[in-house]
Amino acid sequence: MSEDVKINRGLKGIYFERSGVSHIDGSKGELLYRGYTIHDLAAQSTFEEVCYLLIHGDLPNAEQLAAFDRALKAARVLPDQIYDIIRATKDGHPMDVLRTCVSALAALEDSSAEKGEEGFLNNGIRLTSQVPMIIAAHEAIRKGRDPVPADTSLSHAANWLWMLKGEKPSADAARLADVDFILHAEHGANASSFAARVTVGTEANLHGAMVTALATLAGPAHGGAAEDVMKMVTEIGTPDQAAAYVKAKRKNREAVTGFGHRVYRAEDPRARHMRDGVKALGEEMGAPEFYQILEEVVVAMKPYARHGLNVNVDFYAGVMYQLHGIPMDLYVPIFAIGRMPGWLVQCLEQQRSNILIRPLTLYNGPEKRDYIAIDRR
Amino acid sequence: MSEDVKINRGLKGIYFERSGVSHIDGSKGELLYRGYTIHDLAAQSTFEEVCYLLIHGDLPNAEQLAAFDRALKAARVLPDQIYDIIRATKDGHPMDVLRTCVSALAALEDSSAEKGEEGFLNNGIRLTSQVPMIIAAHEAIRKGRDPVPADTSLSHAANWLWMLKGEKPSADAARLADVDFILHAEHGANASSFAARVTVGTEANLHGAMVTALATLAGPAHGGAAEDVMKMVTEIGTPDQAAAYVKAKRKNREAVTGFGHRVYRAEDPRARHMRDGVKALGEEMGAPEFYQILEEVVVAMKPYARHGLNVNVDFYAGVMYQLHGIPMDLYVPIFAIGRMPGWLVQCLEQQRSNILIRPLTLYNGPEKRDYIAIDRR
Repeated sequence: MSEDVKINRGLKGIYFERSGVSHIDGSKGELLYRGYTIHDLAAQSTFEEVCYLLIHGDLPNAEQLAAFDRALKAARVLPDQIYDIIRATKDGHPMDVLRTCVSALAALEDSSAEKGEEGFLNNGIRLTSQVPMIIAAHEAIRKGRDPVPADTSLSHAANWLWMLKGEKPSADAARLADVDFILHAEHGANASSFAARVTVGTEANLHGAMVTALATLAGPAHGGAAEDVMKMVTEIGTPDQAAAYVKAKRKNREAVTGFGHRVYRAEDPRARHMRDGVKALGEEMGAPEFYQILEEVVVAMKPYARHGLNVNVDFYAGVMYQLHGIPMDLYVPIFAIGRMPGWLVQCLEQQRSNILIRPLTLYNGPEKRDYIAIDRR
Repeated sequence: MSEDVKINRGLKGIYFERSGVSHIDGSKGELLYRGYTIHDLAAQSTFEEVCYLLIHGDLPNAEQLAAFDRALKAARVLPDQIYDIIRATKDGHPMDVLRTCVSALAALEDSSAEKGEEGFLNNGIRLTSQVPMIIAAHEAIRKGRDPVPADTSLSHAANWLWMLKGEKPSADAARLADVDFILHAEHGANASSFAARVTVGTEANLHGAMVTALATLAGPAHGGAAEDVMKMVTEIGTPDQAAAYVKAKRKNREAVTGFGHRVYRAEDPRARHMRDGVKALGEEMGAPEFYQILEEVVVAMKPYARHGLNVNVDFYAGVMYQLHGIPMDLYVPIFAIGRMPGWLVQCLEQQRSNILIRPLTLYNGPEKRDYIAIDRR
């Protein structure tokens, strides 16, 4: 019961492992996936290619990418029981339904028990394709529609919008969704990836780790920021009210949603790619005011930028989804679609040199005491 | 990309928080719940009382215990959809089915979204009663029987055996199950409790955290030891083969299941309470050889005790379940029944002074490199 030890609250600044997947330089505002800057990948790559890169460590050649894409497309299949489970839980939050279905897939697909490099890889690819299917099927079923079958002629992002909305997306809309997935694909030892690693640390299977990741992402302090930003935009209402809103928040010492990040002191490097896309999408859809509100909030927050309160990736994502007419409770599930390869590769790394992740708590409860019979309490 | 930092693999020895719930002295082999030794609690308390103690910090008086027991009993209810989900997934591993159902309860019960002290407490009490119901209902359904309805005249442990087997347990059998739950109720920052805290750290709800805990417990290196011990006992076959088995294992530098624990260097203080109960149960049921095999393994392992390889709590639990005729794949779910109050109180503590739990990985991947177009790869 010594008090002589250091308590590392939030494990802030504690390194628990090496990782060759992504490099984050919080002070420079730099993010690399396997050595490639997020800026190059957002501008030139696709989600499928980024998945391959994250998982295998290098960019694929044309043949490798085609084979990987075929595997992803072949995995666009769900057991019938998943639709039954979605129907049984359809009034729940989409994250609860998604997590339930991913958990159920472990019970429904024998191959979910396969571990090792190949087992995790095969299960991870299958889940990467199944997760957007579950989300889209739930959205259809709760709206009283039949789920839209997957279209294997479409990319991962285009097929997702197709299954969700039942209409083929424009090339620009599909590309913005693709970029959104690329930007969310991987981000080091964030809480959901870290929790997934703790689950793998007990030699659990990949489905279990993905369930943990989904449960952890669902918390508003992790995956909920895009939804909070959209609520803020709605609350502000018009661009001219943004400055007053920020002033009131700062006066009450309340955080302004979409600013600040545990690891970035400079601007979140992912933010700019969403910014440009959201601006363009708003103009295309004849609804530029959302973007204008965001930009006024940024101007009003400028004085706090030197304290590290810069805009983060979630700041723009919510508005993009809103422009697509996507309900707010699907924002976190969309984050999950993008993060699938990141979770997979973190789990692969953990399994490769596995160890039980078990830190300590320092006891501050009562000293040893005698048990007293209930009639003397 | 500095190499000048310390990597704390497995977070071994790292304190991340204070906790007033349980105190573990690994070198002395001591375990306290809220200041009471596990020995007093195993001998004199009940699971219901231990739940109250863990959650509220002190032993209840008669009135407090009666009210708490009423709340637990009132919560022995499952929505109809849970039975549908069990039927849809019935061929899966019971841990996969249990985790799926707990996840589905979040979608089915609106109150699952309630957070704060009262929200977590109410949801935690409900889940504590629902988890054994799910496990028993799954066992019935996969065996082609109707689930046995809960009996509110019975204690938590006796009702569990009743629902599982469809017959009222003897007082001794119910008491041994009760002790088993007491011994498994709480154990500091073990991997499942820690993972649940990571989930709460993102402000997720309790159901999400419990799903994480279940996913993490399912790993063989955490919850799977009782099953492994029973497999070992089966492999050894007869008491006279135990010494040769241990010798062969040690020669091949393989671990002997049920020995050693990350935090205990002395004997796991929980082991002795199972040992006596399992010995008595084996004699009562006319099957003393399982216990005899275990004792011969202990004798053969004596030379390694000074290296910290002492028997742990899981060493005896598997044999107890086997004597009850419980299938091996229910051993981990039974661990979960016992651990519910521990997970709950860890989540309550985490929420009370909440912080995002986000450690770091040290990047060891490629240096920054230029993106190359696919036709030049």
